[in-house]
Amino acid sequence: MKESYNPFRSGLDKCAANYAPLTPLSFLPRVARTYPDQVAVIDGNSSKTWNEIYQRCRKLASALINSSIGKDQTVSILAPNSLVCYEAHFGVPMAGSVLNAINTRLDAKTVAYIIDHGRTELLLVDAEYLNLARDALALAKRSPTVIEIEVPGFSCSDGAYRYEEFLESGDKNEAYVMPEDEWDAISLNYTSGTTGNPKGVVYHHRGAYLNAMSNAVGWEMPHHPVYLWTLPMFHCNGWCFPWTLAAVAGTSICLREVNSSTIFAAIADHKVTHFCGAPIIMSMVINAPKDALRDFDHNVNMMTAAAPPPASVLEAMEERGFRVTHVYGLTETYGPAVICAWKPEWNSLDAQQKADKNSRQGVPYHVLEGLDIMVPETMTSVEDNGTQMGEAMFQGNIVMKGYLDNPDATAEAFAAGWFHSGDLGVMHGDGYIQLKDRSKDIIISGGENISSIEVENCLYSHPSILEAAVVARPDQKWGETPCAFVGLTAGASLTQQQVIDYCRDNLAHYKAPKMVVFQELPKTSTGKIQKFKLREQARELAESGK
Amino acid sequence: MKESYNPFRSGLDKCAANYAPLTPLSFLPRVARTYPDQVAVIDGNSSKTWNEIYQRCRKLASALINSSIGKDQTVSILAPNSLVCYEAHFGVPMAGSVLNAINTRLDAKTVAYIIDHGRTELLLVDAEYLNLARDALALAKRSPTVIEIEVPGFSCSDGAYRYEEFLESGDKNEAYVMPEDEWDAISLNYTSGTTGNPKGVVYHHRGAYLNAMSNAVGWEMPHHPVYLWTLPMFHCNGWCFPWTLAAVAGTSICLREVNSSTIFAAIADHKVTHFCGAPIIMSMVINAPKDALRDFDHNVNMMTAAAPPPASVLEAMEERGFRVTHVYGLTETYGPAVICAWKPEWNSLDAQQKADKNSRQGVPYHVLEGLDIMVPETMTSVEDNGTQMGEAMFQGNIVMKGYLDNPDATAEAFAAGWFHSGDLGVMHGDGYIQLKDRSKDIIISGGENISSIEVENCLYSHPSILEAAVVARPDQKWGETPCAFVGLTAGASLTQQQVIDYCRDNLAHYKAPKMVVFQELPKTSTGKIQKFKLREQARELAESGK
Repeated sequence: MKESYNPFRSGLDKCAANYAPLTPLSFLPRVARTYPDQVAVIDGNSSKTWNEIYQRCRKLASALINSSIGKDQTVSILAPNSLVCYEAHFGVPMAGSVLNAINTRLDAKTVAYIIDHGRTELLLVDAEYLNLARDALALAKRSPTVIEIEVPGFSCSDGAYRYEEFLESGDKNEAYVMPEDEWDAISLNYTSGTTGNPKGVVYHHRGAYLNAMSNAVGWEMPHHPVYLWTLPMFHCNGWCFPWTLAAVAGTSICLREVNSSTIFAAIADHKVTHFCGAPIIMSMVINAPKDALRDFDHNVNMMTAAAPPPASVLEAMEERGFRVTHVYGLTETYGPAVICAWKPEWNSLDAQQKADKNSRQGVPYHVLEGLDIMVPETMTSVEDNGTQMGEAMFQGNIVMKGYLDNPDATAEAFAAGWFHSGDLGVMHGDGYIQLKDRSKDIIISGGENISSIEVENCLYSHPSILEAAVVARPDQKWGETPCAFVGLTAGASLTQQQVIDYCRDNLAHYKAPKMVVFQELPKTSTGKIQKFKLREQARELAESGK
Repeated sequence: MKESYNPFRSGLDKCAANYAPLTPLSFLPRVARTYPDQVAVIDGNSSKTWNEIYQRCRKLASALINSSIGKDQTVSILAPNSLVCYEAHFGVPMAGSVLNAINTRLDAKTVAYIIDHGRTELLLVDAEYLNLARDALALAKRSPTVIEIEVPGFSCSDGAYRYEEFLESGDKNEAYVMPEDEWDAISLNYTSGTTGNPKGVVYHHRGAYLNAMSNAVGWEMPHHPVYLWTLPMFHCNGWCFPWTLAAVAGTSICLREVNSSTIFAAIADHKVTHFCGAPIIMSMVINAPKDALRDFDHNVNMMTAAAPPPASVLEAMEERGFRVTHVYGLTETYGPAVICAWKPEWNSLDAQQKADKNSRQGVPYHVLEGLDIMVPETMTSVEDNGTQMGEAMFQGNIVMKGYLDNPDATAEAFAAGWFHSGDLGVMHGDGYIQLKDRSKDIIISGGENISSIEVENCLYSHPSILEAAVVARPDQKWGETPCAFVGLTAGASLTQQQVIDYCRDNLAHYKAPKMVVFQELPKTSTGKIQKFKLREQARELAESGK
């Protein structure tokens, strides 16, 4: 035996018995075998069991393969949270194809861009969005096959190829495609960039699998949760929850219209145990009109992200019996990748202190390898003192493959071996990170950095303020000054000076807004406030001398 | 742009930002960052927080590296469930080394064989096991460095190199080794083969990571469980639970002596929420003497495997307030790889029906890819009729790398791309598998197969029978006949004829034992009944004409 013989690296290779590419598709046959008769999806008056979902997904995969749509080819879907959108998360990759769930609230020009850039071969369109699809296809260079999904209350086009008909063309007994390599693409998600063309974020099977497991472990999900779809599935593939729900054998409740009434009705009627959503969803819960409220006597867990929830909002949710878990991530990180892990010792804090702890973004998700706040110029960690600002950086298996057809943007995002989030924040002494702003949202006034989030948190703590956003307003003397946009609660009234005084009472004076605009705030489909619009508005106001 | 250009396979490669080898070592810095002050391990009067464990593991890794013990080199440990055995599960692989936890109840000759075959470079010995180590080292060809672990009540050798001293030679700030490849070996576990030399089963980081996650998801473990170590850590690395507990921030309670008193004391004093163990542990719970019993008012979850628990035992556990999860696996599958997933609709069954359902082995663990009952000659699935026998076969990421230095045994185990378990069973109509026997435990009487487990289940249902095992006894007329070995509950008495009659009343007559031997049953350290000894005894009885 040679000196260099290493028994741990000899005769111990990968083979079919001991290696399988990681893919969330594995969860589907498992749940269908174990709980075939359990309800998997409820969509309006229709409901499907896990066995039915599995058979339908197999048919979808077979129908796609029969239509010569396969490996690395893009299937786009324009649909709200619904049965078909759910099953597309399995059926499309089971054909080897890449799922591209398109934000239904985009304009036709952007949808056309996505169809062309993402190389859509086949487009599934929910009947509610036929007009948007028609307008987009008129603008697009590509002409994908279009399949229309029938839904109650909306009509399909004459002579349209319909989804259920397409499904029937498939054979549930045909073998479907498992990835040859776990690095293979499973989905393509366009970031809702605030300027310029959106970028196509590519996910692989490995990352989708791992984040699906991480959701379950990080959120302590039991088996058989009842999950309410308030978060759109077209947003980071619903943070990977379509796959998590197959792993934990949950029931999906799909909502075509998300508002206070439908949320409370689902909680009361279906005994919803879990849901995710942007802060706007919390507002719907907290500010629900009396006639939308319903009684329920079970615990409800909410996971929220998108913007750091103001302490006052978190406090109000807890008071109403919702247990809020705060997570943070980006399209580039498969949705949640950071979690404000709750510490048992925080249970003894008062409500405000609890909310303060929980408004921080937190620590790495179980499957995230690295999370740090770094000075991007030097790639060194900031001090863990809660004050030195740096950029949130990520490393690990739930960071995207990269941007489709955009090697320059990919290389820039992954510079020095870390994913640069563009979010600015601090590291606290206990290892929890807290975001202070997007790079472009920071306000520099007289050379001092002002965190727009800090000013917003102050505004949110005012009982008459429903929503608030603060942006930079160009100023000849100071360079920039904070300009606040404020929406008031029903029936409340405030003057600009009252708002400014309130901020001066609670913040360093230079951080108080110099101007306050009262209006409803513009938001993306996922509830993110569109600060670029407000920034434009503030610039116009400054230019017009107002 | 060329026709063959595939945007999903171009410019989307692995890099430090978006790829990290899977390893359970990742859980340790995460839990130490998140819950530094939470108690991680309680061992007698000593307890350590997660921060302390992390620092100690870093020192251990550093001390090993400084001793030139590194990549792919074996560190063996001879210790009971204890603080040091726990931290070895992290500290040893953090040096790049391979952990080999040796069964403390083996004889010196077998330990010597393991040290030689596994190429032990360094041996950690708990002071309680110094004699065994000395005897083994006297027989072994190799002379590993020996480090003695001081424990209260046992003396170290004069001039011994002691563990705490060794630890202090390490630097907690020195960088530790993360695997370059997730396929790298993390541990080496020798199977307690009943005949011949034990085989060294090699685990990799990927499998250890995945099964650690699967334990949490499959068992619905919340964060911060209190976990009682009744299952030895040297058995399949404690079914990967040392790593699971770091993922879910649990507290390990180590027991040096496992008996009814120490189990109930731990449950009452430490509020144990979870523990694992062989059926022998259930006997300790069910048959605990009155003075061992302690009151407790919380739920306790037990996971059991090793042998299909008789329905009567499962029923008794449920009655005492223990929620039993039945799993099945082998050393070759990282411990549990099959779980009797509980169905909500079973809650309405009566106790006996529930126990019948739960005595089946079940469905694939979340991270197991394939599980089937196959006819090994043809590699075709048996009918799912609950009666056709075949061999349990496994596929997936929690099947071992292979047997160390034994390519022939590895190839045989992985023939036709499935791991052959050697366990015989059936497939039920609902996709749950049920074991009927080990290949070598089946009794063939007059050409009829008799499942020894079926006869044992019948014996266990008798109120006076504490434990039972049935083996083949050579017989001139029938070829083989069932021979029962029976242990009675305290104070009970039974005759051979009473036992035979009881079986004839409850089984097909030909399945009833022809001979009954009353005695305590020989067991392995993990509580498995050593049927090979009973088989020998039965053969001797037959030969001597008794």
